[in-house]
Amino acid sequence: MHSKNNTILKMIKGEEVTHTPVWFMRQAGRSQPEYRALKEKYSLFEITHQPELCAYVTHLPVDNYQTDAAILYKDIMTPLKPIGVDVEIKSGIGPVISNTIKTVQDVEKLGQIDPKRDVPYVLDTIKLLTEEKLNVPLIGFVGAPFTLASYMIEGGPSKNYHFTKAMMFRDEATWFALMDHLVDMSITYASAQIEAGAELIQIFDSWIGALNAVDFNYYIKPSMERLIKGIKAQHDVPIILFGVNATHLIEEWNNLPIDVLGIDWRTTIKETSDSGVAKTIQGNLDPSLLLAPWDVIQPRLDKILDEGMQHGKHIFNLGHGVFPEVNPDTLKQITAYVHDYTKRK
Amino acid sequence: MHSKNNTILKMIKGEEVTHTPVWFMRQAGRSQPEYRALKEKYSLFEITHQPELCAYVTHLPVDNYQTDAAILYKDIMTPLKPIGVDVEIKSGIGPVISNTIKTVQDVEKLGQIDPKRDVPYVLDTIKLLTEEKLNVPLIGFVGAPFTLASYMIEGGPSKNYHFTKAMMFRDEATWFALMDHLVDMSITYASAQIEAGAELIQIFDSWIGALNAVDFNYYIKPSMERLIKGIKAQHDVPIILFGVNATHLIEEWNNLPIDVLGIDWRTTIKETSDSGVAKTIQGNLDPSLLLAPWDVIQPRLDKILDEGMQHGKHIFNLGHGVFPEVNPDTLKQITAYVHDYTKRK
Repeated sequence: MHSKNNTILKMIKGEEVTHTPVWFMRQAGRSQPEYRALKEKYSLFEITHQPELCAYVTHLPVDNYQTDAAILYKDIMTPLKPIGVDVEIKSGIGPVISNTIKTVQDVEKLGQIDPKRDVPYVLDTIKLLTEEKLNVPLIGFVGAPFTLASYMIEGGPSKNYHFTKAMMFRDEATWFALMDHLVDMSITYASAQIEAGAELIQIFDSWIGALNAVDFNYYIKPSMERLIKGIKAQHDVPIILFGVNATHLIEEWNNLPIDVLGIDWRTTIKETSDSGVAKTIQGNLDPSLLLAPWDVIQPRLDKILDEGMQHGKHIFNLGHGVFPEVNPDTLKQITAYVHDYTKRK
Repeated sequence: MHSKNNTILKMIKGEEVTHTPVWFMRQAGRSQPEYRALKEKYSLFEITHQPELCAYVTHLPVDNYQTDAAILYKDIMTPLKPIGVDVEIKSGIGPVISNTIKTVQDVEKLGQIDPKRDVPYVLDTIKLLTEEKLNVPLIGFVGAPFTLASYMIEGGPSKNYHFTKAMMFRDEATWFALMDHLVDMSITYASAQIEAGAELIQIFDSWIGALNAVDFNYYIKPSMERLIKGIKAQHDVPIILFGVNATHLIEEWNNLPIDVLGIDWRTTIKETSDSGVAKTIQGNLDPSLLLAPWDVIQPRLDKILDEGMQHGKHIFNLGHGVFPEVNPDTLKQITAYVHDYTKRK
């Protein structure tokens, strides 16, 4: 076994590092030719439910790009099926749910997750990765309650979250019951991932940017605090929070007991730093730039990396996920460039 | 004919007004029972192409809610078909385009619009409304070049605009040729609307928030300046600019020669005002609140209206469009409430 590269953990702790750590959201999956080859032989269900296959896919970007972290190849919907949500991932659409939440009775019908019973393949994948093969930290993850609730109420992906917000505004009892249930589920699910070997947890609140600060503070913040403190009470691991279109919530996020603030490309590292954030900042290359020629990408990288080094604690990432049309060579080139550019003298 | 209510124009000019003017984006259309009744007898094509029907639909919210402006019942795609874009509005999807733009040759193939020849029904609708019936100003509108280009490049609505941005990054010659062509088209189309009787122009740059300030300034700003100055050179009418998720572009927008800055609900009127905006601000109730009970809506209205009166020049609107599930009574109640709350002593 190689000596382990703990750069991402050291960066978050403020310890000395040799370079700025790099990983890419959705680094594993359809952008990889090895994954597409696997998909010709196995279904998505088989890949995600067979620990060897899933560990292989999770591990690929570390081998191919030399990223400083792996992230479990899973969907944020994974823990919902065990609690009784009829979720199906439909190709070209995303998660589709038939038994949507309409009343507090619908929330009361939801069950509890027991990860060892319900998602043993997730834990086995993590164990396979962390006990044997992986020489970088593995990031486990959960969906944040707002983002999960949006699928459970709308019945699928949404553009405007009108019905999710309508429940918030019209039926607080149901809303907070649903938030509570999802927080409990996510604490249990995150803890199980950590116990199996995950060394960081990223909370994906992908769609939270649909709310303004007033609504965030009243309808969301208490649940987010309980979720983060609940995970931390059991295991002292760093927690990263990420969402897109949430430029206007940076102050609110900074007040949460998270360790790393994941931002999209709409704001700069410098603006985020200047607004009073002292935590580690993760981000934030526009993923569309992955289709640009290198002479367009490079100055953008330099700016992000300069501002990240100026801020001090920085994890390089995209501002959202890698998409299928991206050439893996670009991710490899970016990783090498970041490592070299930020090499500490 | 009644004496005309020019409150919205007076507000923008900084003249004395009796109340804060109100209109709602997408105030005409599927949220109205009268519109849905019409749709049982006529197709969408018939409604938009028969001036009497289209004028009736445009006029309804002024009668039913007492809004201080009407906005033409049209789609931002209207001028694209005449220049050779095969655009179809597909129910449940939105605009779908088969002959997408891939190369500079595709841009060169696009034609010019002659509004009197190509869209006489638009001009006739405006004339019908403004010569006879309407006692408030009519807002004409155009799509901004980025937003129109996103449909023309992606072939339909997009979540991430990866290919639109890829063209920007990879092929500047094609990108700027397309911007130029769309700016010329929109100047001609807006001018024709004004000559027919429209008294304001709203530019919908609905999806511009996908870009950060650096990309906005380089790839978009010159076209926006040419568009706005081009309209103003021909006709001295106020210009409103609107987009969602553009909180991070407020400073860039404020530097454009527009008269009114239309913002969504992610920022407050006060924050916008405090950031140095002296122009009229339009907005910004979260449209999801239209499904909330009145006791949730009212304090949000009070805050918006207080901050609007503090700022001075404010047009009340939503932060995005009315959607089909909204009860028209809510729009009526809000309009009356805003008029009463802001009644100048």
